[in-house]
Amino acid sequence: MKSLSCKDLQELVDLVRREALPRLGEGRVADYIPELAKVDPNKLGIAVATVEGDLITSGDVEEPFSIQSISKLFTLTLALGKVGDELWERVGREPSGTSFNSIVQLEHERGIPRNPFINAGAIVVCDVVLAGHQPREAIGHVLQFVRFLADDETVLIDPAVARSETEHGYRNRALANYMRAFGNLLHPVDLALGLYFHQCAIAMNCRQLARACLFLANGGRIPAANASVVSRLRARRINALMLTCGQYDASGDFAFRVGLPSKSGVGGGIVAIVPGFASIAVWSPTLTPEGNSLVGTQVLEQLAVRAGWSVF
Amino acid sequence: MKSLSCKDLQELVDLVRREALPRLGEGRVADYIPELAKVDPNKLGIAVATVEGDLITSGDVEEPFSIQSISKLFTLTLALGKVGDELWERVGREPSGTSFNSIVQLEHERGIPRNPFINAGAIVVCDVVLAGHQPREAIGHVLQFVRFLADDETVLIDPAVARSETEHGYRNRALANYMRAFGNLLHPVDLALGLYFHQCAIAMNCRQLARACLFLANGGRIPAANASVVSRLRARRINALMLTCGQYDASGDFAFRVGLPSKSGVGGGIVAIVPGFASIAVWSPTLTPEGNSLVGTQVLEQLAVRAGWSVF
Amino acid sequence: MKSLSCKDLQELVDLVRREALPRLGEGRVADYIPELAKVDPNKLGIAVATVEGDLITSGDVEEPFSIQSISKLFTLTLALGKVGDELWERVGREPSGTSFNSIVQLEHERGIPRNPFINAGAIVVCDVVLAGHQPREAIGHVLQFVRFLADDETVLIDPAVARSETEHGYRNRALANYMRAFGNLLHPVDLALGLYFHQCAIAMNCRQLARACLFLANGGRIPAANASVVSRLRARRINALMLTCGQYDASGDFAFRVGLPSKSGVGGGIVAIVPGFASIAVWSPTLTPEGNSLVGTQVLEQLAVRAGWSVF
Amino acid sequence: MKSLSCKDLQELVDLVRREALPRLGEGRVADYIPELAKVDPNKLGIAVATVEGDLITSGDVEEPFSIQSISKLFTLTLALGKVGDELWERVGREPSGTSFNSIVQLEHERGIPRNPFINAGAIVVCDVVLAGHQPREAIGHVLQFVRFLADDETVLIDPAVARSETEHGYRNRALANYMRAFGNLLHPVDLALGLYFHQCAIAMNCRQLARACLFLANGGRIPAANASVVSRLRARRINALMLTCGQYDASGDFAFRVGLPSKSGVGGGIVAIVPGFASIAVWSPTLTPEGNSLVGTQVLEQLAVRAGWSVF
Repeated sequence: MKSLSCKDLQELVDLVRREALPRLGEGRVADYIPELAKVDPNKLGIAVATVEGDLITSGDVEEPFSIQSISKLFTLTLALGKVGDELWERVGREPSGTSFNSIVQLEHERGIPRNPFINAGAIVVCDVVLAGHQPREAIGHVLQFVRFLADDETVLIDPAVARSETEHGYRNRALANYMRAFGNLLHPVDLALGLYFHQCAIAMNCRQLARACLFLANGGRIPAANASVVSRLRARRINALMLTCGQYDASGDFAFRVGLPSKSGVGGGIVAIVPGFASIAVWSPTLTPEGNSLVGTQVLEQLAVRAGWSVF
Repeated sequence: MKSLSCKDLQELVDLVRREALPRLGEGRVADYIPELAKVDPNKLGIAVATVEGDLITSGDVEEPFSIQSISKLFTLTLALGKVGDELWERVGREPSGTSFNSIVQLEHERGIPRNPFINAGAIVVCDVVLAGHQPREAIGHVLQFVRFLADDETVLIDPAVARSETEHGYRNRALANYMRAFGNLLHPVDLALGLYFHQCAIAMNCRQLARACLFLANGGRIPAANASVVSRLRARRINALMLTCGQYDASGDFAFRVGLPSKSGVGGGIVAIVPGFASIAVWSPTLTPEGNSLVGTQVLEQLAVRAGWSVF
Repeated sequence: MKSLSCKDLQELVDLVRREALPRLGEGRVADYIPELAKVDPNKLGIAVATVEGDLITSGDVEEPFSIQSISKLFTLTLALGKVGDELWERVGREPSGTSFNSIVQLEHERGIPRNPFINAGAIVVCDVVLAGHQPREAIGHVLQFVRFLADDETVLIDPAVARSETEHGYRNRALANYMRAFGNLLHPVDLALGLYFHQCAIAMNCRQLARACLFLANGGRIPAANASVVSRLRARRINALMLTCGQYDASGDFAFRVGLPSKSGVGGGIVAIVPGFASIAVWSPTLTPEGNSLVGTQVLEQLAVRAGWSVF
Repeated sequence: MKSLSCKDLQELVDLVRREALPRLGEGRVADYIPELAKVDPNKLGIAVATVEGDLITSGDVEEPFSIQSISKLFTLTLALGKVGDELWERVGREPSGTSFNSIVQLEHERGIPRNPFINAGAIVVCDVVLAGHQPREAIGHVLQFVRFLADDETVLIDPAVARSETEHGYRNRALANYMRAFGNLLHPVDLALGLYFHQCAIAMNCRQLARACLFLANGGRIPAANASVVSRLRARRINALMLTCGQYDASGDFAFRVGLPSKSGVGGGIVAIVPGFASIAVWSPTLTPEGNSLVGTQVLEQLAVRAGWSVF
């Protein structure tokens, strides 16, 4: 992989964004909760934060959006900090081969979710992060962690989205009760879900998100603060999980086309990591059938191929 | 990732091998065909071929073994050369979420195998490679290609293994007939299986195997011959498929622990790619429940972690 | 089918019971809730109520036990009375091919349970019976109906069992939330489950149970009261559902061996119908792996074969 | 159940047939093999053979059609005669919960088909009937048995259908190979399939079919010949299997609506048994999505309800 100058990178990012504009609006915005269905489908933002401290942006990078499943990255990092590899006794590390909210696998594998990025796995991660606290405290803790990573105190949880998630979260409630039946939730179902629904409602913009994930491109350290978030080995392992499981049942396709570890959310955001170089956040709300940003995926493919960025 | 001197690498390889010796014999040798069940379970070989032309070896690296599913790499490369991205209309690029010989997924997804490394996918790849020829010709073509990659005319197909595969290949015959029922095999079932059973019976040693896969670590080119096998983009994409699907339903775990693209075979061989640096072949016949070399996986994990080799 | 004299029937019932005594205690008592695990495994009661008004009993026929899933018969009858064949838009009529609390089928068939006797189906039936009322009222209504059928005002709900079901009902809660996600529950999940958990906790003895189901053997009418509960056609159809789905994933085996419509419960009770002749209730608490009374099934097989009772 | 006079029955049969005429052609003729796709969709025949020796017919009762899966009844009877209850070690007795040619269940239950009426189960039954003979001999034996039951030497196997089955039988070949992989076929796959494909190609008319199945309505005996085919218990058990599994994944629905043991074939034939009274054969070629005769099912429902014929 090669390093690009800031100027070249800015030109590339602008070009890739321009080329993608005609496809804005293709696909459908997430509509499983009313709050998400309201989003303007024609948004597109790209932010690249480099390990050298540069920030290249293009388009709608200042507008906060619901990061949804991208938040699973942050709670996973916290859970690993709390219990380390013991986490893997309760969550697997394999791609699921099914959609993000499938319950079939849980029955076949006795309540152990396949990985921490499908909904069931993320709910177990929330159960670990709770660690006996009330959801309110745990949510505060998660939010504080995200603000620290983004170096931005303005990151918020959207209360309308959190409420909407809670009201319509029947499938997640089914997953949580099901795992509880197998003893794989230690807290009452409503507490683990309380944290889960609120983390999904965190609102961030592309700029904040690229910054918040930069430690994964930099061996576990925040370059600006020279602070260690996780060890180099753990950063690599989180990247490995992102590559194999970060895009639900389109992870193989994303690895094939883009070749970078990534995590998507049904709010239309995607974070991708270029190890040793940069963290990229893109946002465009319309989705593929698998639930990943349609234009965001294309933008990342173009950017990665032209910049020569691929872990392979 | 960093480059190691030949001397340091030799010491590391020897050390890792010595440390693994006590675990030799753990797990079970593949026994689904009698020929494989005869192998001495206490073998261990490691060969590292670098893009700079060095070859570091340790242990049983001269003894040929049945490469089995590792051969799927070679026929995939040939098939992509023949039909390019049209291949993906007949085979997916997603991890399967099930075991290597599962037929369940084929029913749910109407005869389209999830990826080219599960058995069903590799049979479709064989169907593409056949391209109207008789199995004998196609097998000759595949063998010639492997010899070219390994720069070694002594690579052979083990006729006893090929016969044994043919005699006991009922599950593969089920997969092939099933896909044919959905129109996803163009040749008669026996022809596609003829090629498939014979490619699985290719016998190679670690040295040959490491060399034969070096092009994947070198942007698609064979360094010694300065010959291009595939484009840089295609090499990356094959590596991506190896990372997400190369170890069957343990691919996520391997990516997490080792962090390198790889392909395993039930003969106990594993090939791993360090992009830009090296191709590694290890061989130890006993297997994990998922069908991957038990000691081989451990050796690769130790080697990768201590050498600092990881794509992440 | 032939009619037996009271005396012959009494002798047969006593004989069958005596022969079964040595096997009492084989298998395991249901232990998914603590209350059920406390039951003495060595109980065995047999009661036969004939359409001519006779009652033949043997063994522990006066001791109430938790009827559990047998209660699904009564709520199904009530639900059909309320909405008739519209019920079948929300519940199927096919054997499930899986265990009684499986959630897999619900995902594959979009929230429509396969039949009214698996847990998911019975929860939908409860949702229908609720009809806008509070669980307390609906439970009262169901209890009143059962007392009317049994002609016995002493039938009760065991509050300890109901509480235990509610506390440990995570899988049922998962099923209910899952169906609600597909819009197949109209009431809040907790209301439908409230009725469900309480109906399962109805306690009856063999004598009461045989009487309460006699209408199904008598073309829908209670012989003693000469009162119509359901039409002849509906009685036949309920019997048909019992035969194909009444013993969960052992229904085919039960039909083969016993040849009578039946419904089992994990409390160890089974009701079987001899159309035109009699209703039989047996109780023995230890279960087969499929969740049906082990000795109870054997008793019914012996009784049916020797009496020449079979619908076939 | 009540007995009808011949005259009343003839009138009822004619009436039911007349009422069904407007729906002829609804649904689609089986087209998985070209030979079946050629059939005139507007055919309708009804034949009722009574245990008293009467034969009531209406419509196209003299035209032979491909009995397809109805033949599974005859080979099942033969297999039970050969090995008795040992058959059940290799085939289950439960409804499948999936379509007739599903392979998913076989993987989950390690090569043991759920019942003898799904394709996989019938192939195992053929393997039992073969008993070391060549398919040609076994086919001759089956044909002879059917002619004996029908008391008609003109029953034939349609060679064009048999050839067509053999040429297009990829899914059945997949099932057979799959079971062979689990050791649940003792003969070579092609031999078991040879018998299977030929039994499916037996051509009979409604009259012959009603007669051939009359022993199942008569306690295992052929009334005219006063010959025993199977014991009363076995006749009941075959009827039980027909009721729970005879209509594939619509068996529950058929039991609910018609209430009689039955077996359908994709050629559009259905046989239904009225124990103690009659055997009914109907034929109309267009099918429901589950693969059962659409008009045939309706005719049987009307006939059963109006005649008061139901085992329940």
